[in-house]
Amino acid sequence: MKNKLPRWFASDNHASVHPKIFEAVLSCNKGHAYAYGGDKITEQAQARFKKLFGPKSESYFVFDGTAANVLSLNALLKTHEAVLCAEGAHVTGDECGAFEAFTGSKLLVAPSPDGKLNLDKLSGYIQKKGDQHHVQARVITITQSTEWGTVYSKEELREIKKFKTKNSLFLHMDGARFANACVALGVEAREMIELAGVDVLSFGGTKNGCFMAEAVVFSDTRMASSFKYVRKQGMQLASKMRYISAQFLAYLENDLWIKNATHANSMAKKLSQKLSLVPGVEFVQNPQANALFVRIPKSWNNTVFKNTYFYIWNTSENICRIMTSWDTQDKEIEHLAKIMRNCSKSK
Amino acid sequence: MKNKLPRWFASDNHASVHPKIFEAVLSCNKGHAYAYGGDKITEQAQARFKKLFGPKSESYFVFDGTAANVLSLNALLKTHEAVLCAEGAHVTGDECGAFEAFTGSKLLVAPSPDGKLNLDKLSGYIQKKGDQHHVQARVITITQSTEWGTVYSKEELREIKKFKTKNSLFLHMDGARFANACVALGVEAREMIELAGVDVLSFGGTKNGCFMAEAVVFSDTRMASSFKYVRKQGMQLASKMRYISAQFLAYLENDLWIKNATHANSMAKKLSQKLSLVPGVEFVQNPQANALFVRIPKSWNNTVFKNTYFYIWNTSENICRIMTSWDTQDKEIEHLAKIMRNCSKSK
Amino acid sequence: MKNKLPRWFASDNHASVHPKIFEAVLSCNKGHAYAYGGDKITEQAQARFKKLFGPKSESYFVFDGTAANVLSLNALLKTHEAVLCAEGAHVTGDECGAFEAFTGSKLLVAPSPDGKLNLDKLSGYIQKKGDQHHVQARVITITQSTEWGTVYSKEELREIKKFKTKNSLFLHMDGARFANACVALGVEAREMIELAGVDVLSFGGTKNGCFMAEAVVFSDTRMASSFKYVRKQGMQLASKMRYISAQFLAYLENDLWIKNATHANSMAKKLSQKLSLVPGVEFVQNPQANALFVRIPKSWNNTVFKNTYFYIWNTSENICRIMTSWDTQDKEIEHLAKIMRNCSKSK
Amino acid sequence: MKNKLPRWFASDNHASVHPKIFEAVLSCNKGHAYAYGGDKITEQAQARFKKLFGPKSESYFVFDGTAANVLSLNALLKTHEAVLCAEGAHVTGDECGAFEAFTGSKLLVAPSPDGKLNLDKLSGYIQKKGDQHHVQARVITITQSTEWGTVYSKEELREIKKFKTKNSLFLHMDGARFANACVALGVEAREMIELAGVDVLSFGGTKNGCFMAEAVVFSDTRMASSFKYVRKQGMQLASKMRYISAQFLAYLENDLWIKNATHANSMAKKLSQKLSLVPGVEFVQNPQANALFVRIPKSWNNTVFKNTYFYIWNTSENICRIMTSWDTQDKEIEHLAKIMRNCSKSK
Repeated sequence: MKNKLPRWFASDNHASVHPKIFEAVLSCNKGHAYAYGGDKITEQAQARFKKLFGPKSESYFVFDGTAANVLSLNALLKTHEAVLCAEGAHVTGDECGAFEAFTGSKLLVAPSPDGKLNLDKLSGYIQKKGDQHHVQARVITITQSTEWGTVYSKEELREIKKFKTKNSLFLHMDGARFANACVALGVEAREMIELAGVDVLSFGGTKNGCFMAEAVVFSDTRMASSFKYVRKQGMQLASKMRYISAQFLAYLENDLWIKNATHANSMAKKLSQKLSLVPGVEFVQNPQANALFVRIPKSWNNTVFKNTYFYIWNTSENICRIMTSWDTQDKEIEHLAKIMRNCSKSK
Repeated sequence: MKNKLPRWFASDNHASVHPKIFEAVLSCNKGHAYAYGGDKITEQAQARFKKLFGPKSESYFVFDGTAANVLSLNALLKTHEAVLCAEGAHVTGDECGAFEAFTGSKLLVAPSPDGKLNLDKLSGYIQKKGDQHHVQARVITITQSTEWGTVYSKEELREIKKFKTKNSLFLHMDGARFANACVALGVEAREMIELAGVDVLSFGGTKNGCFMAEAVVFSDTRMASSFKYVRKQGMQLASKMRYISAQFLAYLENDLWIKNATHANSMAKKLSQKLSLVPGVEFVQNPQANALFVRIPKSWNNTVFKNTYFYIWNTSENICRIMTSWDTQDKEIEHLAKIMRNCSKSK
Repeated sequence: MKNKLPRWFASDNHASVHPKIFEAVLSCNKGHAYAYGGDKITEQAQARFKKLFGPKSESYFVFDGTAANVLSLNALLKTHEAVLCAEGAHVTGDECGAFEAFTGSKLLVAPSPDGKLNLDKLSGYIQKKGDQHHVQARVITITQSTEWGTVYSKEELREIKKFKTKNSLFLHMDGARFANACVALGVEAREMIELAGVDVLSFGGTKNGCFMAEAVVFSDTRMASSFKYVRKQGMQLASKMRYISAQFLAYLENDLWIKNATHANSMAKKLSQKLSLVPGVEFVQNPQANALFVRIPKSWNNTVFKNTYFYIWNTSENICRIMTSWDTQDKEIEHLAKIMRNCSKSK
Repeated sequence: MKNKLPRWFASDNHASVHPKIFEAVLSCNKGHAYAYGGDKITEQAQARFKKLFGPKSESYFVFDGTAANVLSLNALLKTHEAVLCAEGAHVTGDECGAFEAFTGSKLLVAPSPDGKLNLDKLSGYIQKKGDQHHVQARVITITQSTEWGTVYSKEELREIKKFKTKNSLFLHMDGARFANACVALGVEAREMIELAGVDVLSFGGTKNGCFMAEAVVFSDTRMASSFKYVRKQGMQLASKMRYISAQFLAYLENDLWIKNATHANSMAKKLSQKLSLVPGVEFVQNPQANALFVRIPKSWNNTVFKNTYFYIWNTSENICRIMTSWDTQDKEIEHLAKIMRNCSKSK
């Protein structure tokens, strides 16, 4: 299987790079350019971000999503302050302790069945404000769309904003799949930021058609005053930055980022419609972005994984994550649905 | 000036990407591939590294040189152990404290006029072995070629190897310009490693024709046992790693890396020959790789920087770093020499 | 209330210092002594620890319990490795993030209603061994007696030993109240260590009659090889160490530590017998050492706290922690029981 | 020798505890008291500090001097900011990397022959302000009296204040021997603070008659807003704090701290007068507080160390540190002088 992996359903991280992104990178490969972000392409890309997120915003480019999350949070925290997050958040479960190692701070985790932060579960942490024995809650981080393929509704975002304001907290959004969330909610970038009161955003490009392009976007430039040092100290300052910036230029041009996400989401919807008709396939989350979480009978596994590829998220319950991406094709959707239907029949 | 930067002399980091590197990256952009280094291209690139550095070696790809240095050192250290380095080493002077922030350890710095480590200056640190009040020397790091454009001789490397063996230390080599050093010394990669007894190497691709490709190479795979966690925790695990690996594939193919460095070094030699004939230009280091450090009269600055670009390394003494790269052209060399000659005459 | 606090029930940390401890400290105050642990008194105290914990053990004295925990764990961990602990463990809930700040590592927390570690809840963490995206479980920490006043049984300790052996983990025991646990279980120090397979113990003196005396005890001296640096780097090397060591000398002399704990535990038992007869007082934990956790009606609070003092552990449920110490007196027990009985009647 | 160490000259850390300090500690040992600094004794001691350092000041008690230094600096720094210090400063040379381990920040060290900070040597660091590749200078730390027994003059302190103001830096003073410095300069505590513009002071008690009592004193309470968390996270919050606070109460009562230091300094002066008459004894530093640094012929070592004890600070040059303390006696001074005179004669 490892040898001939077509466009299957394991991850949007497995997808290739969009041709327009490549063209842009190629076209910036002329002569010398200032290193470390002093070049023209970076200037232009940053200007695009300012257009997208408003004149008070400020953006910094980094290599990967883990760094975007950890450095964003680091910028908002002192070591004795803490971050509130949902169980299952990438920053606590999938980044090999990068947050703790780099910030020295603590994550305070609230149980969550669907990847969303349950505000009621946070009251214990909030009550400990002022007590020297306890880290002090300072930042909320939410993932939009979540690691479980769900999307915070506008109402949920407004609740979070109220909560953060009331408790004098900052809000970080892990937007590794920000594009998919904007499309799912039908909101523009800035509206998403304002709805939730996002202070810093991890804005992902890699999963949605780029090859290595993530941005840290501050809503208010005043919060970014020392971020250039944080980024360099965090080992995330690209010397030949134009090759990241060029990706973003193309990514934001003519809403390519929105188009890619629209495609991925619609493929997921199509697939979920097909699978919902297959007896034996049980949806464990409401698929709102580009990921489906379904439980299938273990007896199907052999047949399924002989013919396609995706991850079993929970082995004991045989819950699978099926993910679409900017390059998923109709025939692939149909191919997967067919496999499932066959399993269902022969059961 | 910022708008029309041709191939000048500020840095090999300002250089563009070699066409063959680009081709390789483009050609790997097909269909889905396993993320996080599980793909075929990465497997092939790692096999190339094994060929280059020997069957016991093991290589890990990261985004940038600062990370290659810091994570390499981190793999060799406990927090109470320390790294011995020369004043002017990139890791202590130019990485915004990434080493201290990520490892929590201490750098013990020895004065150095030429970027090389003076072993005699280290005895004080060695004497403190066993004393609980002092961090314990554990690793030596040297940069080859150095930040001052010099290259450790074979004899110097052998001395370092003796010293590290005698004192039970590890050796890290910052090889951001490893290629230039190999060419300058006329040794193959493995010979360099063996001469000095390098335990871990930061192997640079970015400055020599790649756009984002650095590797951490362990000489003995047993030392690398937990490095995959260190890399992820260090926020340096690329999700779409094939796009880094493809760069390395092309970089090592047909000795492109050696060819690029040979060109850069020979351009530096050509330039140094020309400049050595210009009264008023004073060499402050012996140029052995691809960088020249010269003192020029401050009165020249206006004329010089109207027509070309490089960095003033030391403002008060007007010492300049002039750097060549894989794409430096003969006519550019002549152009710069001419500017200097004119300044010299009109003085 | 703050002005006239007699021997009440808030904490064994509120208790005074045992006269014999004071005498020992006073008697060591003669002439000069080597600093930083090189003195005779420290030598003697360490010898006592060796007698208590076996010839292969090695002990280091530190100032406080938080440090004993964090430095013990630090000695067993690399940054990408993690510690498994129960919800409610002091190290995760009451040390203001000292663990994360000093080690940079992650605590993996299992839900626990009674302060004990539920091994079944740890399987998810164990399954992630070998996966680069996840911190690697390396150490288990348990508190004996627990923060909820419970004590691991011999059988439970044996289970933990099996689990740690099977999964190649280390075991740390937070023994801030080790004495109370030994007394409760009826085992000697060494038996406790062997039952559970403890690798490193935080051995507490402060809560049980000393004023500032905690020890880190390694079961095998080979694991302690670099701990002297960890302690100094952890800011826990006392210059005038004899004044800590003298406390321990007296503490271990003629089993004073056991006598003190026996008294505290028996006072707790006496109190629990009395309170169990009071309608309205509901025990939420089985009191096995020197702490009782009881739910009382909120309507009692006014009367209760006008006459005595202890902590409300859970405000919403009005769960109280009532703690005895080496200096608790019979009449105080009776006094508290009487207050409760009166509340119960007038309800 | 190790067995019968009288009041010799190795260190003020070897000295015993002043009887009045002991009495105070003993007298606070009554009944229960709030833990973690909530007690009456601590309240009183803090009030004394406020009287000494002014109504805007705020003091926190910790266990040891290394912690006082590291936590003070941590309170003033973000991780990417740096501390300027003199070569030989305790924080960089004698604390086993505690600063780097706990703050993750960098120390920028200026060469110094006498323990004092040479402001001219700092300009290079200051010039790097605003450059993302470099840690940003934020705090100056000076030791008063220095590790070489010298004392900054009033004029030198004023220069430092000008420098820090001009460059928007904070100033930390390592006052492990603050008392000796006040006495040497003939200034009161507050005058010292104002002369230099000290923002945070490590105020030492341990070396001058206490057994474990150090304070972190903020000149302006606004800078201390989160220090209680820093202290707890730094593992320096004493549970039974009254036993530290009682030491300080006695220490500050009737200027005991000044009396002790006056004695130590005058003993040092007496000794230096005697030794200056001995041919062969060469002073390498101007003794201004309670330490003498002298070079003696190596041939004397045998005789000297058979009869007394102090440290050889520099083995190759046989430079010795001879230190007096609050309990040094006249006859001991004479005894040491006699040994030296005999060596000198028999040479």
